[in-house]
Amino acid sequence: MKNSFTERGIIERIKCRVPVPEGDLLVGIGDDCSVVKRSTGILELFTVDTLVEGIHFDSSWHSPRLLGRKAVSVNISDVAAMGGYPRYALLSLGLPKGIDETWVRDFLDGFEEALGEFEVTLMGGDTVASPGGVMISVTLVGESLEGQVLLRNTAKDGDLILVSGVLGDAAAGLELYRMNKAGIHPEAYPAQIKAHLDPVPEIVLGQLLAESGLVHAMMDLSDGLATDLARLCEASGLGAEIAAETLPISTGAERVAEALACSALEWAIAGGEDYRLLLTIDPGNREKLAALVRTKLGRELFLVGRMISKHGVFLVEDGHRREISYAGFDHFIE
Amino acid sequence: MKNSFTERGIIERIKCRVPVPEGDLLVGIGDDCSVVKRSTGILELFTVDTLVEGIHFDSSWHSPRLLGRKAVSVNISDVAAMGGYPRYALLSLGLPKGIDETWVRDFLDGFEEALGEFEVTLMGGDTVASPGGVMISVTLVGESLEGQVLLRNTAKDGDLILVSGVLGDAAAGLELYRMNKAGIHPEAYPAQIKAHLDPVPEIVLGQLLAESGLVHAMMDLSDGLATDLARLCEASGLGAEIAAETLPISTGAERVAEALACSALEWAIAGGEDYRLLLTIDPGNREKLAALVRTKLGRELFLVGRMISKHGVFLVEDGHRREISYAGFDHFIE
Repeated sequence: MKNSFTERGIIERIKCRVPVPEGDLLVGIGDDCSVVKRSTGILELFTVDTLVEGIHFDSSWHSPRLLGRKAVSVNISDVAAMGGYPRYALLSLGLPKGIDETWVRDFLDGFEEALGEFEVTLMGGDTVASPGGVMISVTLVGESLEGQVLLRNTAKDGDLILVSGVLGDAAAGLELYRMNKAGIHPEAYPAQIKAHLDPVPEIVLGQLLAESGLVHAMMDLSDGLATDLARLCEASGLGAEIAAETLPISTGAERVAEALACSALEWAIAGGEDYRLLLTIDPGNREKLAALVRTKLGRELFLVGRMISKHGVFLVEDGHRREISYAGFDHFIE
Repeated sequence: MKNSFTERGIIERIKCRVPVPEGDLLVGIGDDCSVVKRSTGILELFTVDTLVEGIHFDSSWHSPRLLGRKAVSVNISDVAAMGGYPRYALLSLGLPKGIDETWVRDFLDGFEEALGEFEVTLMGGDTVASPGGVMISVTLVGESLEGQVLLRNTAKDGDLILVSGVLGDAAAGLELYRMNKAGIHPEAYPAQIKAHLDPVPEIVLGQLLAESGLVHAMMDLSDGLATDLARLCEASGLGAEIAAETLPISTGAERVAEALACSALEWAIAGGEDYRLLLTIDPGNREKLAALVRTKLGRELFLVGRMISKHGVFLVEDGHRREISYAGFDHFIE
């Protein structure tokens, strides 16, 4: 009997095999990183992310150098999501036989450059031949302090939901290339192109938020708000209500959407790879946190909704309310 | 300009980008595991190995359950090679869209079973869609004690070279399936089939050897003696001489070689995936170590050669001497 599934279905299948964390393992499958308790006060963070050619990137527009950078950034983002400090990386690289030597050199240039920017040391890895396209699997080891790590299962009913930046730029950038519409030049939308090709993980902001003690739950946005917020809700045993008109969408993304006859709101809700932070806080801490983030980093956080007791993620738009749980990007369905 | 390379060439290319280990990182790229120093006396070991369908396994004869076991075992073997204790695993699983649900269940059964046997906890991972076949990347975190971890760059001139068991059984098992010769039934050679499909990593022996203080250098045999010993020699700045008649080859492998008109000696030298330990010791410690291994585990170590100052790996057979460095299995050339 053939039966295919969604990414969520497979992860659920694996999760149910895994014993409840115990001993030194504080957090197992189901958060951005696994967390292991080490010597007094130090927590170790582990995450792995794999990028597959033809699924996660298209070599016809993704240069090897930027791909090398992105392979690092998407993993750093998982450490940022916990408020941690990235330390070491392992690289497993699957390469088609006969791949161009220049491609490998440029990929490693970008990979090394991004590691350097985040002060991460490449400590090992392996290379394998790949019968399909390029396959890049990065394991990242990070650190945090006990009591400072931010999880996704600790949101509280009534919490405000914030995001750390505009949503949908990465989807806009992807669609500029994918739809390849006559007369529309991707280079005319540099912010959206960069969001797709060379995202910037929120590592410093993540650390500030973790150290502030003002955040209840946090994760990064990799598969779209609809899906990632649904994960946070499920982990916390709660639901969420999002107000469509509050979603931060750049004018650039609006312009791309208009040019491509798409919906920027849909990208903000369901587009993947924004790598922004999604967090929940007590309503009473909103001003204090905003002041901290403004003062320390000159950044803004955007209020997009509220945690509720009813399960599910609901979008309120023009007075209508619809459920959008897990409506984000899924590579197994797409 | 197109220019393809060997696995060794790619690893060299990556190694030259990596700074010399410093600070907490004691061993970087170039050994079976990377080694990070943690709190007093504890060393942390990291390794990643990826198995790719059509390159590392053939689903027409490798059952999903045994593949799940092997994905664990080949990584445990890297920890065994350092004399360490495996603790945590991360699994990155690439699955073709529409893969059979039974396949995934059976794979996870085998994966979980092997983790349990070695008391390893699955702590996280990710799943991705794969445009090619199945892709399994496992990151393993292990532990060791300072002063007990065994490296491959610490062999000494004049050391005896030992292996922990018969060589070539895995290659014999692979060829039984791959050549699929009429009238020859793989089931008639259970030890060779098991060596290929379900190898047993030498974890307990590795720990005993590390704790004995009698071993100079150690690694596991994953790509064949010719290639792996060449790596140990290169890391130690030495060479090695192997006596063909001393190589431990099972009668089963000899029988398979005869049936398939192949050379069991060639399999012992160049066949991959034996997952035996390769170690070097001071000649004066031979009896002491043999007694320890016999008493504690009822096992034998096999003397196969000697470390020499002249660079290269040389096989002496019937009075003739030929260089066999890096003549082992390479997935990029094969």
